[in-house]
Amino acid sequence: MTLILNAKDVEQAINMRTIIDQIEKGLVEEYSGHVIVPARVNLPTNNKGFFRVMPAVMNESGYMGFKVFFKSGANNQSSVRYLIGVIDQNENNLEAMMDSHYLTAVRTGATTGLATKYLARENAKTVGVIGSGLEARTNLEAVCAVRNIEYVRVFSPNPNRRALFAQEMSQKLGIKIEAVDSPEMAVQGADIINVCTNTAAAGNRVAFEGKWMSTGVHVNSIGSTMPSMREIDTDTFEKADGIVIDTKHLEEESGDVITAIKNGQYDSSKVTVLPALVSGNIVRKNDAQMTLFKSVGTAVQDIMAARAVYEEAKKLNVGTDVGEFLEAKMF
Amino acid sequence: MTLILNAKDVEQAINMRTIIDQIEKGLVEEYSGHVIVPARVNLPTNNKGFFRVMPAVMNESGYMGFKVFFKSGANNQSSVRYLIGVIDQNENNLEAMMDSHYLTAVRTGATTGLATKYLARENAKTVGVIGSGLEARTNLEAVCAVRNIEYVRVFSPNPNRRALFAQEMSQKLGIKIEAVDSPEMAVQGADIINVCTNTAAAGNRVAFEGKWMSTGVHVNSIGSTMPSMREIDTDTFEKADGIVIDTKHLEEESGDVITAIKNGQYDSSKVTVLPALVSGNIVRKNDAQMTLFKSVGTAVQDIMAARAVYEEAKKLNVGTDVGEFLEAKMF
Repeated sequence: MTLILNAKDVEQAINMRTIIDQIEKGLVEEYSGHVIVPARVNLPTNNKGFFRVMPAVMNESGYMGFKVFFKSGANNQSSVRYLIGVIDQNENNLEAMMDSHYLTAVRTGATTGLATKYLARENAKTVGVIGSGLEARTNLEAVCAVRNIEYVRVFSPNPNRRALFAQEMSQKLGIKIEAVDSPEMAVQGADIINVCTNTAAAGNRVAFEGKWMSTGVHVNSIGSTMPSMREIDTDTFEKADGIVIDTKHLEEESGDVITAIKNGQYDSSKVTVLPALVSGNIVRKNDAQMTLFKSVGTAVQDIMAARAVYEEAKKLNVGTDVGEFLEAKMF
Repeated sequence: MTLILNAKDVEQAINMRTIIDQIEKGLVEEYSGHVIVPARVNLPTNNKGFFRVMPAVMNESGYMGFKVFFKSGANNQSSVRYLIGVIDQNENNLEAMMDSHYLTAVRTGATTGLATKYLARENAKTVGVIGSGLEARTNLEAVCAVRNIEYVRVFSPNPNRRALFAQEMSQKLGIKIEAVDSPEMAVQGADIINVCTNTAAAGNRVAFEGKWMSTGVHVNSIGSTMPSMREIDTDTFEKADGIVIDTKHLEEESGDVITAIKNGQYDSSKVTVLPALVSGNIVRKNDAQMTLFKSVGTAVQDIMAARAVYEEAKKLNVGTDVGEFLEAKMF
């Protein structure tokens, strides 16, 4: 059978803790050398849109799949649409196809949660959030799944949006969340900082500056996923004692990292990839060190998150079963 | 909306003549330079299986899409499964996802039909077929859609299978079809020859030999789609006055062509790509010349065939509409 999961189905079948665990399994498999992830295919469409395809094959767990996402149309404001397909190698079957707009934000959050589990101080209790969009929400939720967070401060430029974030996420997570008037106020003294913006920063304008980092802090930054996008300054990279990146590709894809490299503030000897971190490489040596996690997303994260959603959807009996969708008759 | 079409739905919505026309439109667009087709991604899976992804973007017609096909599983006899997704750039919408096992054979046939329309003699009336599988059927059907074929001879090694082919295809196409005892008998004097086998030929054993070609013949060969596969000998390339290939990639992908190049029997000055042929480049100069069409399949052929199926399916009201499958909400 093949299960079709639309946005509502996927949202019902999301369990953040399970997704974090599944992504961890996938990254351990990746580190062991059983995963094939080619460079993503990135094609230009009309009206400055794009069509991207990210396949991956996991030869230990026996899963494989693809993510397709695109943005096109005469209306420049049209959104990105995301599709993930998951194939079970053992059954030679396309087991699910799902909308992954919301899921992409969830897997980004879950990956941040996973990095935070290994990088933040054990006793971390406070989070400073910059950004109030979907990614800011899923990233906070994931951090709360791996640490006993008690208090959060949030800043984003629009007062209504940050107030709404504080109200809704406080209710969802059952912790105190306060909206504040500046990014400094949000991050000052926080044990963990989540920078989750989508600013295509003009010039050197960024949402977070390294000078705001204090002893023992862990910083997550997920919003600079293209060379043109920046959200943290280059000092952040220099101040961090340890840096973890979700993929080496990020060094050509993230404007933040590209700029830090250009400025000579990106010391490769401090950099570990996330699959190595979750496979036992220790980055934080003590509670005084400062750590930084940068991510752009990978197909393994997508496929493992989608697998977790698929398993949960089957349990909950959500989605549309289109039966033996892909024929396997021999001719 | 997104329409899900399984094997039965697709079969109902196939109209060979429309598919030939749509592929022709796509190839004209390709020749005009508005199509982006990257090299296909080809990943190895467990148990000597594979996972392939072929995307394409068509920036004049505004369509794009992907074909995914795979073969995996402990059972080495497991079949290949095929999926095609078609996206309408203007609507920024995934309009259809369909099984494309049968459709792949149909689009291969349709592409042969298109080549035959431009390469075979106008007055061609007889076809010799080598092979009796699904591809042999769709290729014959397509040739009959572009020429007034009156009589067909078919050979394949299994007497029951070739008899069944003759009986079933005669009924389907309303013409006389005879099963014969050797490949020479099938092709002798035929105006058009279709070689449609899936022999992973050992050594130099091939299904068709150039010495069987006679004045004015047009030969189609579609079965050598991997370097390890061969179905026609290298003399065929030397004897042909004009050769048309569906894509330049074929020169690295088809065992037939690779071997002909190695033997010095593949004269590049005789070779034209199919998009150029359908855009007005003339290959057959007179009724005495011998021509050869070789194909391995391309993503543009797939997407245009899938689009034709989608339009027909909407008319016929077949398939499962899964609504606004991929969310486009802005966050």
